[in-house]
Amino acid sequence: MTDQYWALPDGISEALPEESWRLENLRRHLLDIYATWGYQMVMPPLVEYMQSLNTGIGSNLDLQTFKVTDQLTGRTLGIRADMTPQIARIDAHKLKTEHPNRLCYIGSVLRTRAFNEDGSRSPLQVGAELFGHAGEDSDFEVLALLLTTLKQCQVPQITLDIGHVNIFRSLAAQAGLTAQQEKIFFDMLERKSLPDIDAWLAATKLPAAEAEMLRQLPRLYGKPDLLEQASLVLAAANPEVQAALAYLASLVARIQQEFPDCRIHVDLTELSGYDYHTGIVYAAYAQGSGREIARGGRYDGIGKIFGRARPATGFSTDLRVLTRYWQAQAPQPTKIFAPADTDPCLSQTIQQLRAQGQWIIRQLQGDTVKTPQDAGCGQQLIKHGNEWIITEV
Amino acid sequence: MTDQYWALPDGISEALPEESWRLENLRRHLLDIYATWGYQMVMPPLVEYMQSLNTGIGSNLDLQTFKVTDQLTGRTLGIRADMTPQIARIDAHKLKTEHPNRLCYIGSVLRTRAFNEDGSRSPLQVGAELFGHAGEDSDFEVLALLLTTLKQCQVPQITLDIGHVNIFRSLAAQAGLTAQQEKIFFDMLERKSLPDIDAWLAATKLPAAEAEMLRQLPRLYGKPDLLEQASLVLAAANPEVQAALAYLASLVARIQQEFPDCRIHVDLTELSGYDYHTGIVYAAYAQGSGREIARGGRYDGIGKIFGRARPATGFSTDLRVLTRYWQAQAPQPTKIFAPADTDPCLSQTIQQLRAQGQWIIRQLQGDTVKTPQDAGCGQQLIKHGNEWIITEV
Repeated sequence: MTDQYWALPDGISEALPEESWRLENLRRHLLDIYATWGYQMVMPPLVEYMQSLNTGIGSNLDLQTFKVTDQLTGRTLGIRADMTPQIARIDAHKLKTEHPNRLCYIGSVLRTRAFNEDGSRSPLQVGAELFGHAGEDSDFEVLALLLTTLKQCQVPQITLDIGHVNIFRSLAAQAGLTAQQEKIFFDMLERKSLPDIDAWLAATKLPAAEAEMLRQLPRLYGKPDLLEQASLVLAAANPEVQAALAYLASLVARIQQEFPDCRIHVDLTELSGYDYHTGIVYAAYAQGSGREIARGGRYDGIGKIFGRARPATGFSTDLRVLTRYWQAQAPQPTKIFAPADTDPCLSQTIQQLRAQGQWIIRQLQGDTVKTPQDAGCGQQLIKHGNEWIITEV
Repeated sequence: MTDQYWALPDGISEALPEESWRLENLRRHLLDIYATWGYQMVMPPLVEYMQSLNTGIGSNLDLQTFKVTDQLTGRTLGIRADMTPQIARIDAHKLKTEHPNRLCYIGSVLRTRAFNEDGSRSPLQVGAELFGHAGEDSDFEVLALLLTTLKQCQVPQITLDIGHVNIFRSLAAQAGLTAQQEKIFFDMLERKSLPDIDAWLAATKLPAAEAEMLRQLPRLYGKPDLLEQASLVLAAANPEVQAALAYLASLVARIQQEFPDCRIHVDLTELSGYDYHTGIVYAAYAQGSGREIARGGRYDGIGKIFGRARPATGFSTDLRVLTRYWQAQAPQPTKIFAPADTDPCLSQTIQQLRAQGQWIIRQLQGDTVKTPQDAGCGQQLIKHGNEWIITEV
């Protein structure tokens, strides 16, 4: 009958001591790495006015965002469902440098429905964003930082799915698709529904060359050498498409050189976040799991609504997911049991040991804990003459 | 015109890089201390069913809690406004030991209106709770951990206001106050409104001795020796009152012995959280600020609604507030500038330096950053023969 009081909502989880220890250790490890790459941590708020959250990158997050009424102003507040738009707001408005700005963050977000197959509605989002630089170097730096993150977390056999939104976007423009047609085609691409695509193209009067390139698009995926083939298949495409293919080829080559263990899968229909991404988009997968564990891409112009459009590229992932792979966490120190003895010398000894980082469990008067073992301790403090010394139990 | 997009709601704040660095460092320092005292970290969820949040200790938090509808079940969810009830739920339901359980936590909470004078609606709550022990030793341990926390944060001249809810509760029972009368009297005590109290007692027919004791109650505050005087003034009170006074005297003596610098202020009308506290209650203040910076007390029986009543004592505070006092944070390492040079040897050097914990900012092709100074770097990597070496700028 008390079940109703303690069950957590679907997709909402908590961390008990063992998992918290792992999460806290990995959190520190990743933030320390990000610092060595020059990424400064920021802490955006849990809640903002919907107008701030739901702009630019945030527009497709509207349905995912829990809303409440601010009792002080009557305005609508949103609980953050994604921290990336918040980081963009901070770059645009709070840190007004004209130079590149490297920021990282970690925190819980909340979603009305689960994004991913794992069903979590409250990921512990961790990510890094680089604002203020539009070239390949910033995309590569962020991608390298993501791959370094995954390697540090011991994710087995990383596969990177990579695409470039300008390829479909420019082809659609070249073919003269209306906004509605583009949407229909986009949905079919997402479903990778080849028969639907072929039937739709046959029924729609598009120029023959463009129709054929759109028909080939969902067939263009595979190892990086696919990009050469794509260049031939899309030879009649406008310069933007060619530029995007060349950009992808150059970036992929750099990844292959610095991360030879990473499997790369080029997919020209990888279009997640199509409404705000403006360049490369990617998702990372671990061996034996069809579930993406991280994603990112370029989203230039994101700060415009905040008064300053800036080039931007970044990734985000979920600390809880990463922790599942991480085996290298520090072991907990052996706990030391101290008896419920009022000797001031014992208190002094305990204070000194704690200052050295030792973990001491002090027995309480009337405690149900009678032995060091009861308290999970592997060592204990025992009086030896006038001194308290540590002994094994 | 873009102001509406970036302004944060009242009482909601974010941390930019400098403050985030301080918050993260202090967070680690405090969690490390709590571990040495045997307090294990847990991470309760951001959101729960209102039925879970709003029980026991949580009942007076109802108005403070933002509520949303769970789209999966139609049930009401609450964004946590206080993490203590969540920790009690975890102790009662998830960690079923009969032994004492020491837990600590840190996380953002969200409130519809500000609790405290500082106006924050989203404190970074940090605290520690000890479940499963009902005696003085556990109250003392938690209080000692709070005072250690404040000392570590370099809070100047700590004052501890301490009381015991059983004194008023038992006096009210002895005087035969109805629930409504008790509420009226409680409100007058909170306001420390002596004329109202005197007038109300004169108008209400209570036994003379009990009326006089209630009249004296708001006058009983001051240094610890006040407790002797209280014992005389409340000599006609029932044994619970005498026991509470003796308990306070013993606990206060221990605090004075181990924390001689801490000013103690006994206040028998210190009754915050009266509806769930069951023993001592206290609040801590810093020199020159009338604003409390931490609070705590005993709240036995809290897990009952979750199927298991347990003795409990704990404190909580706000990391943001503590960070304002903390001057001892680690300085940031000198940043090292690396030019946008494609030499693989440079990449290798950077990788090694980062693995050693050095902070490297790598210039990007086409970067607006032209010099180490542009990137805030105090050192730079320069090619010397075949090697890249660090030099001052």
